[in-house]
Parts: sequence; C-alpha cells; structure tokens
Amino acid sequence: MPTSDKHLSLKRLAIDTYKENVAYLHRECALYRTEGFQALAKLEVRNGKRKILAVLNVVDDDAIVGTDEIGLSEQAFAQLGQKEGTQVAIAHAEPPASMDAVRRKLRGERLSAEDYNAITQDIADNRYSKVEMAAFVVTSGQTGLDRDEILYLTHAMAATGERATWEEPLVADKHCIGGIPGNRTSMIVVPIVAAHGLLIPKTSSRAITSPAGTADTMEVLAKVEIGPKRIREIVHALRGCMVWGGTAKLAPVDDILISVERPLGMDSLGQMVASILSKKIAAGSTHLLVDIPVGPSAKVRQMREALQLRKLFEYVGDRSGLHIEVIITDGRQPIGRGIGPVLEARDVLQVLGNDPDAPNDLRQKALRLAGRVIEFDPDVRGGEGYTIARDILDSGRAMAKLNAIIDRQGRQTRTIPPGSLSFEITAGRDGVVTAIHNQLMAHIARLAGAPMDKGAGVDLMKKLGDPVAKGDVLYRVHAEFPPDLQFARDQSRRNCGYTIGKPEDIPPYSFGL
Amino acid sequence: MPTSDKHLSLKRLAIDTYKENVAYLHRECALYRTEGFQALAKLEVRNGKRKILAVLNVVDDDAIVGTDEIGLSEQAFAQLGQKEGTQVAIAHAEPPASMDAVRRKLRGERLSAEDYNAITQDIADNRYSKVEMAAFVVTSGQTGLDRDEILYLTHAMAATGERATWEEPLVADKHCIGGIPGNRTSMIVVPIVAAHGLLIPKTSSRAITSPAGTADTMEVLAKVEIGPKRIREIVHALRGCMVWGGTAKLAPVDDILISVERPLGMDSLGQMVASILSKKIAAGSTHLLVDIPVGPSAKVRQMREALQLRKLFEYVGDRSGLHIEVIITDGRQPIGRGIGPVLEARDVLQVLGNDPDAPNDLRQKALRLAGRVIEFDPDVRGGEGYTIARDILDSGRAMAKLNAIIDRQGRQTRTIPPGSLSFEITAGRDGVVTAIHNQLMAHIARLAGAPMDKGAGVDLMKKLGDPVAKGDVLYRVHAEFPPDLQFARDQSRRNCGYTIGKPEDIPPYSFGL
Repeated sequence: MPTSDKHLSLKRLAIDTYKENVAYLHRECALYRTEGFQALAKLEVRNGKRKILAVLNVVDDDAIVGTDEIGLSEQAFAQLGQKEGTQVAIAHAEPPASMDAVRRKLRGERLSAEDYNAITQDIADNRYSKVEMAAFVVTSGQTGLDRDEILYLTHAMAATGERATWEEPLVADKHCIGGIPGNRTSMIVVPIVAAHGLLIPKTSSRAITSPAGTADTMEVLAKVEIGPKRIREIVHALRGCMVWGGTAKLAPVDDILISVERPLGMDSLGQMVASILSKKIAAGSTHLLVDIPVGPSAKVRQMREALQLRKLFEYVGDRSGLHIEVIITDGRQPIGRGIGPVLEARDVLQVLGNDPDAPNDLRQKALRLAGRVIEFDPDVRGGEGYTIARDILDSGRAMAKLNAIIDRQGRQTRTIPPGSLSFEITAGRDGVVTAIHNQLMAHIARLAGAPMDKGAGVDLMKKLGDPVAKGDVLYRVHAEFPPDLQFARDQSRRNCGYTIGKPEDIPPYSFGL
Repeated sequence: MPTSDKHLSLKRLAIDTYKENVAYLHRECALYRTEGFQALAKLEVRNGKRKILAVLNVVDDDAIVGTDEIGLSEQAFAQLGQKEGTQVAIAHAEPPASMDAVRRKLRGERLSAEDYNAITQDIADNRYSKVEMAAFVVTSGQTGLDRDEILYLTHAMAATGERATWEEPLVADKHCIGGIPGNRTSMIVVPIVAAHGLLIPKTSSRAITSPAGTADTMEVLAKVEIGPKRIREIVHALRGCMVWGGTAKLAPVDDILISVERPLGMDSLGQMVASILSKKIAAGSTHLLVDIPVGPSAKVRQMREALQLRKLFEYVGDRSGLHIEVIITDGRQPIGRGIGPVLEARDVLQVLGNDPDAPNDLRQKALRLAGRVIEFDPDVRGGEGYTIARDILDSGRAMAKLNAIIDRQGRQTRTIPPGSLSFEITAGRDGVVTAIHNQLMAHIARLAGAPMDKGAGVDLMKKLGDPVAKGDVLYRVHAEFPPDLQFARDQSRRNCGYTIGKPEDIPPYSFGL
C-alpha cells in the first residue's frame, strides 16, 4: 500500500555516471508507485534547501537499493552534499524554464543575452538532460548563431564558473583551434615568452578525441594537476606555467556542452569561438594569439572559412576586453615527428635543446607564434618578435625556463620510453609524399594507445615533399600492448594515411584562397 | 598491470534503464584501463555473433560488478540473450554510419528514402545514443522535413517492426492527434463500428504526458494487455477490440523517438504524421479517420495549421495504400465531464447506456466520428453514417458490443470508485464560462494522480458557455493520496484553468480560419 510519507533514506552508489546525475529507486518503492515516475524521468531530490536534479533508473534488487531508499550516483551524491541515511524528498522535476528559449531558437528566432544567461545557468545547475543539451547544441550549431549570439553565449558561459585575476595589465595566452597532430608549440612558446618577461599562465586540456593534449604531453615531464594557489606561486616566480585546466572550474558549462558536441561530431564555428573565448575570459587573459591551421584534412579546410572565423574571434574579443590576434598557419600535415605524449615531448626537448636533428617545422612554427605573442609587449616594435624569440631559444634561456617550470610543478622521476612494441609502414612505390592525413594519423596513434599509454603513438620519418623510394619507412607505430598494436596495424593496412605522388600534386599552402 | 585478455564475465544487474542500454565496468577492470574507455562512452558487447551496444557507467564497488565482470542493465541483458557468466568481448562502438546523414540534414540537405531507412535501422539496432537521437529529432523538427521526407520516414519506421495482416479488404481505424482531456470517443466509436460490421481492431496507447490514454481508461473495465494471438481471436469473433498497443511491436522506432521528443516538448507536424501513420501502416489498417481538434489550448491552434496537417496526412496516406479521411473538430475545451480513467469510463458508460444525464458533447462527437468511419463501408451512402451510428447507439447494440468485448478481453472484477479525497473549485464571480484550458486541466488531473491512480482526476461541472453565479462549483478534483490532492490544489489556486466572462468573449469554433 503506498504511503503518503514523501521521504526516502539517502544511499551513495559507487557508480560513476560522468557528467550526468542518476538516481536509483526500487521498483517496489512506495514513492515510485504513487508518483507515477517513469524510468529516465527527471527527478528533483531535496533535503532542506539543498537540491539536485537526476535521471531516474529503476532497480529490482534490494542489494542495490531498498524500497525505502534512494541511491545516487557518485557525482549526484557529491553534489547533494548530504550524509548517507539522510531523509530526502523527491518530486518530478519541472523542465528547465530556459527550454522555452531553446524552442524559440528551434523556430528560427534569435535569442537575447538574457536567454543565453538563463540557458547556461540552467545547464550549470544540472537542470538540462543530455537530450535537452543536444537540442540546444544542434539548434545553435552550424550557421545557427549570428555574431551577437556568439558574443552573448561567450559571456554567459564565462559567467558560470570561477574567474581568475592576475593583477597585471598584460596577461598573454596562445590557443590553437586543434586538429593537427603533434602540434605541441605551447611547450616551446610558453618558456620563450616567459623568459622574455611577459606573464603567460598557460592552462591546457587533456586529449578528448585527439592522441594528446598539451597537458598529456607536459605530464611526461612534470606534474600538471596543480591547485589554484600553487599555480599562482609558480607564475609569480617564473612568469609562466603549463598546467591542466581541469581543476580551475573555468567556464564549466563549456566542458558540459563539449561532452555533448564531441560525440555528435559537431564543430560549428560559432560554438568553437564561444568555447575558446569563454575559457580565456574566465582565465583572466588580456591578450590572445589564436592559431588557425588550414589544410585539406585540418578542421578548417578553406582559407575563406579561416577568414570568417578570424572575424568572429575579433568581433567577440573586441567586445570582451580581450585583445586578439589571429594567425593562419599551414595545416596540411602533422607538425614535428612524434604523435603521442612521449614522442611529442621528445620533439619539444630537441627544439628547446637546439638539437641539429630537431624537427624544423615545429621550431619555425613555435618561433613564429612566440614572436607574435612577444609583440603584445608594448616595448617591442612590430616585426621584431621573431628575432627576440629566436635569440631566447638559441641562447638556451627557453630550455632553462622550461626546466625551472618543470622543477616548480614537480619533475617526473620516471623516464617513459616509447612503447616497446612497434611496426613500420613503408612506401609502396617511388615518388614524393604529397599528403599526410591529419585525422587518420591521429586515429592510428589513438588506436595504438595514446594518450592513455604515454609511450604509444606514431613517429613520422617522412614529411610532405620528401622524396621516397619503394620500401622506405614512412612512419613507425609504438604501442605498449599487443591488441592495441594490432588495432593500429589493421587501420594502417586499410589506409596508411600517406599519399605518394609527383611534386606537383602537393597542394599549395594557399590552396583554399 | 593491464592484461591483453579481452574477455569479461557477463552479469545481469537488476537496473531498469528503460530504452537505453547501460553496461557497468569496474574502474579497476583491466579492459577499462587498457582501452581508454570513458564513462558514458558507447561500448559494443559481443559474444560470438550476438552483439549489443551500451552506454558505459564506471563502478567503484565490487558488490555491483567485480574487476573481471561486465554488468548489463535489464534491457541490455535481455537483448544480448546470453547467460550470466558467459565470456563476452567489449570494444569501442563506432558511431552509427547513418549519423553522416543526420549531419547532412543538419547542414540543410534533404535526405533520401535510403537515408531514412539507414537511420531508423540503426535506431532499431540501438546504435544511437540519446544524444544522437536528439540531434536527429531536432534537425528534422519544425519545418525541417518536406512531405516526401515525411513519407520516407513513415515507411522507414513502419518497416522496423512487426506488420499485422487481417486478410480482409477493409480494416478501419480512427485516431485523434491528442491534446484534449476527456476525449474518450474510441470507446464509443469502436463498439458502434464493430456492431455495424466493419473490422476495427483498435490498439491504443497508455498516457505518456496526458492524464489518461484510451488503454488506461479501457483498463478500468477490462484487461488490455493481450497477446497477438488472443487479439486475433477476439477480433475474429466480435469485429473489434480495444487493447494496449505496447505488446504488438509495431513501428518500435516510433516509440523510441517519442521518448526523446516528449521531454523536449517537440511536436512538429511532420514527426506527428510519420509517427501516427507508421503505426497504422504496421497495424494493417486500410482506412483511417484522423481527428484534428482545433482550439486556443489544443495542439493545433489555427485552422490554417489544421488544413496544412490534413494535406500532409493525405499525401502520405495516398502513397502508402492507406485511405485517409481527416475530420477537424472543436478543440476549445475538454470533451465530456470526467478527466482521468475512472471518471472517463463513467462518461463512456453513460453515453453507451443512453443515460439522459450523459455528456452530450461526447455523445455527439462520437456519433459524428463513428458515422464517418461507417461511411468507409462501400455499401453506405455518403451522409448516412451518422444516422446508422445513432441507431446502433440508441438501440443498445453498441453497449451490448462493448460488453461482449469486455467479456472476451477479461472483465475487471473490481469496481474502482473515484478517488475518496476531493476538493471543489468555485466561480469567483457571476458570468459565463468563456474558456477551459485543456493543458491546465490535464496537468491538474495528473497532479491528482491520474493515470497511475485510476480514480484520480477532475470532474467538470460547467462547460463552455454555461452561466455561473459566484460560488458555483466549476469542477471537483479527486485523488487517492493527501499529497497528490495538495499538489493539485496548489496548482488550481495558482491558475484554476477556467475563465469567466461575457458570452461574447467565447471564441467562435471557427476562430482560426
């Protein structure tokens, strides 16, 4: 017989449901019967003023939850912040009020700044289900956001989390929109810029769909999970750092939306701009260099799209007190030789160590970017940044700075070698390399185990334009476990990612103009 | 140390995750570590040729799953169809191939019949996550589907499930697009039409967001969960039935998409047409009467929208071998007096019993619909259906037919009274009733406990145009449990759903023309 007592005893279930709160009710629970809840319905779970929203799963096993209990997944339990055994009330959760705005967007309306504030606040409060978030992401995807809407969304997302302040007039940063494997310029740019004296407190992400994020590669050399107070001390002492941004709670709604966008393979320009700039505004940056690589297998494939993206960055930046310079770079192939944390770290150390064998494309690109960041310094004449950066690199001061940062963040005691299992892919005919497919090389490196296995990845022996003879090694794949090696080998056999042809087949860098 | 053994022992977890498969891996499970899975990632779980897809939840409790086990939620376990302890392999699931078509739709392209077939097949095979389904639903929502695309989607959905055949040239059906509380005409139309001799094997849904579906109300009188073989016997003997459609596995993809559309509050015309007609085609109907109520608080609010919807039904029906008649009806207020299963069943029995106190609007509407269905009979002259229907009703033959159907389906032995707890809402001033808000009355009935508590609901004492004096009872709310009564009372106090005004304030039935 159902009871009118609306309370259940709280239980923590050790189930990790990632960014989604789940509540577990027994099928015989009186409240489940009375209230007419349905599996996957959204519940509000309340204790006094604390309340959370969660998706309902129904349980038929007393060992998981009893009939007078409610189980919460790990994240939901932590969010409610109450002890096990606490009496909690449950109710049907109303759909978030801001879904009205999403429905208006769906009908083709432009939304206001207030609408975007309401949407991001509801998302931050966990009021949106995955399905509702997908609806928002899809309606605002592609050409769905005009530039003012991108501005509103940027500010709304920046306002949902913490905000760092550095009490300095110039806080520099650089950011690449991604998509180019091996592109670890930040680990060279930051030491150069910090050695020049500009403040560059760099926070980076871990890889989500790529074989390595800057945080993953830096972690080969130093600890990167560092609290806000320690970051402040390091930056104060050294003018720079390279840490994982995940602890800082900057623009958390951006992370939530990314967890929906990525599986959909959606990467709209508007959402990209809002995502990047909301994080930078929250991080307290004042000057930002944005790197947009263009190439046939890069995120941006046409020069005109790169220019459109540049305008969007400038429009939003100018209205947010963030000085933005955009640099369009060659995205026709991976940068450097290594793809995967250990192999990329090796490239970075070769460049900083002025090793004659260092990959020159990584060195040149890093110098060009560092030069542009240095020119944010009002005391540097336009055009002189590159020379300054090169002097800092050649003199060994950049390497010294990296070592200082590594020591402060906490040097890794273990040296990780490249994965001990390997195979090589060779050229099937004579010719020159006319294309190296960015996404395919990234995919092979991930199949080999990167970034989870730090030594896994791909080592490129030939780059665009290099002449090859039949049988020459194009690249070597490293893995730590046999099945991963096999997955990567199967993929390489299906499509190795390289094209061999005649020199005139190489697309010019300005191909998209 | 991770192992290269890729097998795990299967465990059934008694967790009901509704239409979503969930797999549970222990955080210390070797495969979780090696493969770099992430919570909420999609896995493929395989044993020989049997395989399913499931969303990953990570578990930190050996009691739920051990490190060498994989737990599956109830639906996922049933779908895989293997015994506990079976060794299964897991792998990252590739995104469904048809998501490419969804992305093309997102970019504004029209999709082909092949695209819709691929999408619905992937959804039927559980290859779509909720987020991917939301993307599909949203991109094809609103005006996103042209009429050929609606046709393709209809046929593709009908093809995903079972298909009923009746071996008769004329299989009649009626369907209301919904949104009007108390609108239980099917329970009157089916007995009349079956008594006339046309075949009308009616399957109905349970309420999802409304206070009662026809299946919920019929269940007050008879069993409605009946297997396909028994349904066939009943229809053979009596020419009609009124059963729950959930056991028939007709167009299952429609149910899956509805579980995504409903929480989003999306009700696009195209999706509505495809949803209704795919079910009818799969059910083997040859002649269908579609009821489109129009009113200020109905699903369709403007006459021009009703006409647009009519054209869509006709277009798809004509190309599917399904003869369709559309009838546009008065949707300005609830039909009959009762809202909620027991109260609606009472209204139906009053009409069929020719009770002088029976609600006349329900009687008239049911006769009009039954007359139109009877005119599907080639032997009936156009315009004579209504008279035939009225004769069948007045003679008691419709009531006799209902009783025969009830007895064959299984008569309920218990008579359920209206909920014993109640309160009344009275008029705040003199005047006439100028509006009764459909959604609000439905919401109050649901808060009172309908459809889960069969006796719960709302009993309307006044209808549109009725004169009222201050203090007159407008409606009575019934509930079975005090908190439900309180929820309904709170809502009625905020907004009682009735408007009292002058006779000229009543919107004319043709208001939207």
